[in-house]
Amino acid sequence: MPSRSEERILLSHGAGGKLAHELVERLFLPRFSNPALAALDDGAILSETPEGQIALSTDSFVVDPIFFPGGDIGRLAICGTVNDVAMTGALPRWLTAGFIIEEGLPMADLERIVDSMAACAEEAGVGIAAGDTKVVPRGHADRIFINTSGLGWRPEGVRPTGAGARPGDAVLASGTLGDHEICLMTLRAGLRLDGEVPSDLAPLGGLVRALVDAEVELHALRDPTRGGTATVLNEIAAASGVAVRLEEEAIPLRPGVRGACEIMGFDPLYLASEGKMIVVLPEAEADRALEILRGQRYGENACRIGEVLEGPAGRVTLLTSIGGERIVDMLTGEMLPRIC
Amino acid sequence: MPSRSEERILLSHGAGGKLAHELVERLFLPRFSNPALAALDDGAILSETPEGQIALSTDSFVVDPIFFPGGDIGRLAICGTVNDVAMTGALPRWLTAGFIIEEGLPMADLERIVDSMAACAEEAGVGIAAGDTKVVPRGHADRIFINTSGLGWRPEGVRPTGAGARPGDAVLASGTLGDHEICLMTLRAGLRLDGEVPSDLAPLGGLVRALVDAEVELHALRDPTRGGTATVLNEIAAASGVAVRLEEEAIPLRPGVRGACEIMGFDPLYLASEGKMIVVLPEAEADRALEILRGQRYGENACRIGEVLEGPAGRVTLLTSIGGERIVDMLTGEMLPRIC
Repeated sequence: MPSRSEERILLSHGAGGKLAHELVERLFLPRFSNPALAALDDGAILSETPEGQIALSTDSFVVDPIFFPGGDIGRLAICGTVNDVAMTGALPRWLTAGFIIEEGLPMADLERIVDSMAACAEEAGVGIAAGDTKVVPRGHADRIFINTSGLGWRPEGVRPTGAGARPGDAVLASGTLGDHEICLMTLRAGLRLDGEVPSDLAPLGGLVRALVDAEVELHALRDPTRGGTATVLNEIAAASGVAVRLEEEAIPLRPGVRGACEIMGFDPLYLASEGKMIVVLPEAEADRALEILRGQRYGENACRIGEVLEGPAGRVTLLTSIGGERIVDMLTGEMLPRIC
Repeated sequence: MPSRSEERILLSHGAGGKLAHELVERLFLPRFSNPALAALDDGAILSETPEGQIALSTDSFVVDPIFFPGGDIGRLAICGTVNDVAMTGALPRWLTAGFIIEEGLPMADLERIVDSMAACAEEAGVGIAAGDTKVVPRGHADRIFINTSGLGWRPEGVRPTGAGARPGDAVLASGTLGDHEICLMTLRAGLRLDGEVPSDLAPLGGLVRALVDAEVELHALRDPTRGGTATVLNEIAAASGVAVRLEEEAIPLRPGVRGACEIMGFDPLYLASEGKMIVVLPEAEADRALEILRGQRYGENACRIGEVLEGPAGRVTLLTSIGGERIVDMLTGEMLPRIC
């Protein structure tokens, strides 16, 4: 028997037999414990009935490296799906977790990831209702991939949607943009920047809940992950049949992100964040929303970044700091694979 | 531009930008079309409220090869999760689909898989409400992995569970056992058997629905996938604190499966099926349930395979055809990786 610290995942851990059961009972159940999961039937029966409409989302996570400043693939897998559910205006409640693990992954790595998921789920107020583990032979996957799917309940009357932006609306960001992608990029490139940029990875259910509880009218909510703020706003502008104009001076960037963009020639509008959201709402609601966001954890640096115009439909532009205006298209090509 | 037939998945198809949008609009939306998905927000809002309790399940699929007699990874991803939801006694209604694709997968393979998923979802009566696509560089995954999560509604009063078996209950199988694993095993080993065994891959929602509609009292339902019938019955015996006795003569096997087991020395009780279920129910309900199952597609070969005894708690035995009785333990070790 290898000592606990040297133990590795074997193919048998995914075979549905004794070792798989041991893994569930020793590793997953104590960390994710709740009555829905503990029944260990093929599906979980939820103890709760939805309040309002059901929101449903899914995301797979293949981030490389699996541990990084500010988080890890486990925290990412919780936040990513919690945030997608929250962007519908719903309160995230239940997640599923599906693991695809490469044979040979150190058991200690899996424990660290599952600990991180459990802590983040608790912070986000969601339960893990169902799970699944597959193990593939060495070389058939890269360490670990995690899928999470999420369920939330959306109160009646709340309906942010990509098609909801209206001319005259304000565009807010809940904080600094691009931290997650710059964190991974510098880590993968082995760069040392002045001032490390940790990932901004965070669950956003609390921010959305605060706005919903205060009955702030929300037209569109999106978290600018892959493709960044530019892509998200292009999606909103196209779906809503409006134009969006951003102000370069107003885009909130950490000094380390700004510096990395200058050195490497990146446009920060295409960088992924993992703990930020873009809010489109009536101008008359903007100041109140900013005050609410700034009073919440993960919303301290919320600010206004632009406005919604009549048209041309689908166009996003940036008023640059030197007074010009340029078109901001959707991301084309690939900046950095495996950032989430 | 490569011609359509040579087109391959690129990293950019997973980057969240233009190519990812094209993939969604050209490939996924037309096949999975429904109002929940078509909104293309971060999460889907379901148009329906649950009737009864909510059942939730998840499963990832890494089967190798991705196309096999009787199915493919797409049909498997639908059936696997539909069946897990159905095993709670619920009517499967909505699925999510998360794709992890290796760079270079032929676009034609992805189209064939998604076509197969769409056809199977229609057969099973479920909608694909939300999806996600990640692309990883060549060598970081093996062609395609799919996660599906499923939601269903369970009528009040229906509550099969692994802990529900009672002494005196009958144990039924909905059809021949082990077809799926023998199909993959012979394919991977390059064996030619007398009479090809196709996978039994099938959605079981209709079988469960027929039993529930007829108000058959269901104590436990499980689909014998990884770990096979032996593992499923060990789980039920342990959770219920009962013993289970199977009759070897009664175990339904296709001739090709029986032959393969004899040649290769496999115990058919450990082989995975992907379109079968084990039903534990009061003896007084058994004949009625068998009649109902046999009248349904995928239930034609349903039969009684054993009975539930007082104890010893957690023990599963097999009455062999030569009159002996042997203990049937849970699967230990790994028979064949990547069968689902």
